[in-house]
Order: sequence, then structure tokens, then C-alpha cells
Amino acid sequence: MNDFLKENERIDELYSNEVKIIQNPNVFSFSLDAVLLAEFAKVPAKAKSKIVDLCAGNGAVGLFMSHKTRGKIVEVELQDKLADMAQRSVELNDLTNKITIVNDDLSNAFEHIDKDSVDMITCNPPYFPDIKSSKKNPNPYLAIARHEITTNLSSILEICEGLLKTNGKAFFVYRPDRLPELINVMSDHHVMPKKLQFVYPRMGKDANIVLIEGIKSGKKGGLKVLPPIYVYKENSNEYTSYIREVLYGKNK
Amino acid sequence: MNDFLKENERIDELYSNEVKIIQNPNVFSFSLDAVLLAEFAKVPAKAKSKIVDLCAGNGAVGLFMSHKTRGKIVEVELQDKLADMAQRSVELNDLTNKITIVNDDLSNAFEHIDKDSVDMITCNPPYFPDIKSSKKNPNPYLAIARHEITTNLSSILEICEGLLKTNGKAFFVYRPDRLPELINVMSDHHVMPKKLQFVYPRMGKDANIVLIEGIKSGKKGGLKVLPPIYVYKENSNEYTSYIREVLYGKNK
Repeated sequence: MNDFLKENERIDELYSNEVKIIQNPNVFSFSLDAVLLAEFAKVPAKAKSKIVDLCAGNGAVGLFMSHKTRGKIVEVELQDKLADMAQRSVELNDLTNKITIVNDDLSNAFEHIDKDSVDMITCNPPYFPDIKSSKKNPNPYLAIARHEITTNLSSILEICEGLLKTNGKAFFVYRPDRLPELINVMSDHHVMPKKLQFVYPRMGKDANIVLIEGIKSGKKGGLKVLPPIYVYKENSNEYTSYIREVLYGKNK
Repeated sequence: MNDFLKENERIDELYSNEVKIIQNPNVFSFSLDAVLLAEFAKVPAKAKSKIVDLCAGNGAVGLFMSHKTRGKIVEVELQDKLADMAQRSVELNDLTNKITIVNDDLSNAFEHIDKDSVDMITCNPPYFPDIKSSKKNPNPYLAIARHEITTNLSSILEICEGLLKTNGKAFFVYRPDRLPELINVMSDHHVMPKKLQFVYPRMGKDANIVLIEGIKSGKKGGLKVLPPIYVYKENSNEYTSYIREVLYGKNK
């Protein structure tokens, strides 16, 4: 085993862009959400672009976007163990010149990144409200990543509004059941929804993932709802060609 | 010609439920929006149900829902000429015991219908903000039906909140580009979004119609995003089987 890895860790690869990523199934593994968010996000290519990923987990979204830009990416993750995995994945992929991991609470973001300086933000926020502990994930790493224990939509949007330049863009992946709250909180913080895309497990089923783009200080109106994404083919457990391409690259 | 009809009017039929409807292409004709809204709306069947259609136009939505309920339907339409067409369609279909047409401004709704008394509301609101007259439809009937000249989302939701019983439902058909505003205004008026369904002209295209259900005093969260509706088959100008069924009935 690679002495780079700690207990229970393994290296996975996102074949479509040849990024290697350190995972620990006991702690945190990236999911399809991260891959779809990195694909949905319109990454600015220019060398002076400043890109931020909030709630970065093991760094998946930033790593998956890195080949699309010559700019800099900052990933902010509160949990030490996850930020450490992210940092080692950045080293593993020789991306230390491009990606910086900040191991701190979101609410301290302005200590690390200038206000009104960011071109684009991605975020895969915790989905579940902070409910009584009995129903939380017993794994504390996953509980924090998935429940609004250490942050919530309102705090995240406040940070997004503060960090983004005027007309800067924010991209979120979320669960459809709380989409109205996300839209309300985005609007309250002047990050106006401009694109929506729903992901359905297969035809005939309700959506289980939503992707949304907002523009800081954008005008009201002008939302586009993109064609749906289906994960599996009809009556089959095989990925659709779109998902296969996102995961494994073209012609796989 | 039927002496029931006035100049330029004709009788169309929605074959799927054998409803006849008086149309005047120079004034107002129902569109697919009305058919989809009547299909999307969960119509309460009981004889004591009270159902209201706001911005009723020529009465299409109320007429199309009438076979699903033993309750009463009130349709509110501001424009005399449209309300008169709606009234004659009600008579033509022998539905005067079930459907009442109110020819008045929305804002007077509480003069005709008790507050907190309604089980279900449907509404196909004007889509376009009230902009300078040069860009409006030169046809004044269509201008009022399509632009926020005599009402707007906020007034409509205020009326919905006032009319509905607690847990009563409101169903809207709208354009996706203003969906965030609709969601914000619904939330402001405690008509919480619970179901969304997008209508795409065909696969691979952006959605051009959205259907939404809200529940008065509903809790936050729990939104369902139903499978997409496609209007036309892929690479064809033929309706999909769903649309054919909605328009012409089963086995047509």
C-alpha cells in the first residue's frame, strides 16, 4: 500500500479527467453529486480566475474542475480529517500550484479570501436540517457533511454573496425537497437563480438531485430549466450514456 | 352558425372529456397551458368541495376540471367579453349547477367567496411583467391576460392565501423564467410549494412551462419534482402519447 495513505483509505480515480482522489469509506467518499456539480459548473478558464469550493469534503469538486481552468481554486473544509485527505489528493495530482485547501470554518472565509474577489463558487451543502441527534448519521464526519450542524443555507449564501464579484456565479447541488428554501435564501442574498437542472434516477421517477446556478446581483427573471439528466437507462441498472461519459470519459 | 355564438366565435371541443368551449381567436383561445393545469390539479371530488379558478379567461380550466368533482367551481374573470364567453360555455355544457362565472376584478374576490372557505384554487396568471406599452400585445384582451397590467403575482397569492382553507391547495401554470419569483411570492404568502413538474417541448430542449402545487400553511421542505412532460416526440412534430391522451382521451 502507498505509504501516502492512512488507515482505511484508498485511491479512486475519476477516469473522465484522470483525477486521483483519496477516499475513506468510513469517513467520506465523493458521490455522483460532486461529479455532476463539477460538470454543471461553468468554470472560468482564464489564468487570473479565482474559484472557490465551499463545504469541500475530500476535495472532489475542486479536483474534478481543475482541468477546466488555468486559474486558482481554493477549497474550504471545516473537518480536519477531510481537509487532510483533500490536501494529499492535491499533492497526488501535482496540483499544489493550482489548488489550495483551507481547513477552517466557512464563517472565517473572509480571513482567507478577499471579499468581492471571487469569479465562481461551487458548493455541495449539507442537505438535512439539524434535527435531534437520534436521527443523525452516527458517523460524525458524515453527520457534519450531511446535516446543518456547523453551517446552514443562510450562512453559506451570506459567504457566497460576500466573496463573489458582482455578476460572479455560484453553483450548488442540492436535494429537490428543499429547493424552494434554497431559491428563497439565494434571492434574499442577491444570488439570483439563473439555471436549474434536475437529475432523475430514471424515466418516470421523481428527481432526486437538483443543480442550480445563481448570479450575484443578477436581475429577477430569466431562469432557464435545462433538459433533465437521467442516471440509469429505462428498465435497466446501466448508466445512461451521459453519466457514463461524465464518469469514464468519451468513448468508454 | 349557432345563434348562441357572437361574431368570430367558434365552438372547440376538448375531446378527452367532451367539453365544448367557445373560443374567439381574435380575443382569447385556451392553450395547452390550461389543459395541462386542469390535468395537474388534484381536484377534490366531494360534493361539498369548493374550487376556484382565478384569471379564468374563457373558462377553460374550470370546464376541463368539472368532470372530476361533484363540488362547486367558481371562475373569476375580470374581462367582460371573456367572462361572457365562459358563461355561455357553461350553459352549452349544462354545467350551470356546478360552475359559476364571476365577472369581477380578482381584488374583489372576497365579496363573492368567503375567506378561508376554498379547498382548491387553480390559476394561469399573466406571465409577463407590465412593461411599457410599445412591447405589449396590441390586442387589449391578450395584453391583459398575458401581462401584469391589472394584477400581479403578489396580488394573486394574497387572494389565494385569503381564500384557501388551511392545507387547501393552489395549482399554477407558469413560465420557468419567472419560477424563482413565483416560489418566493408563494412562500411569502404561506402557500408552500410542494410539487413541481416541468414541461419540455421535446427531449434535449429547455422547459417552457412549469406546473406548481402549493399548500396553504404547509411546512417547509418536502417538495417533489415529478417526471418531466414532453410535448412532442423526439425529432418529430407528433404529440407524445401523454399529450395525445390529455387532449383526445385514451386510445385516440
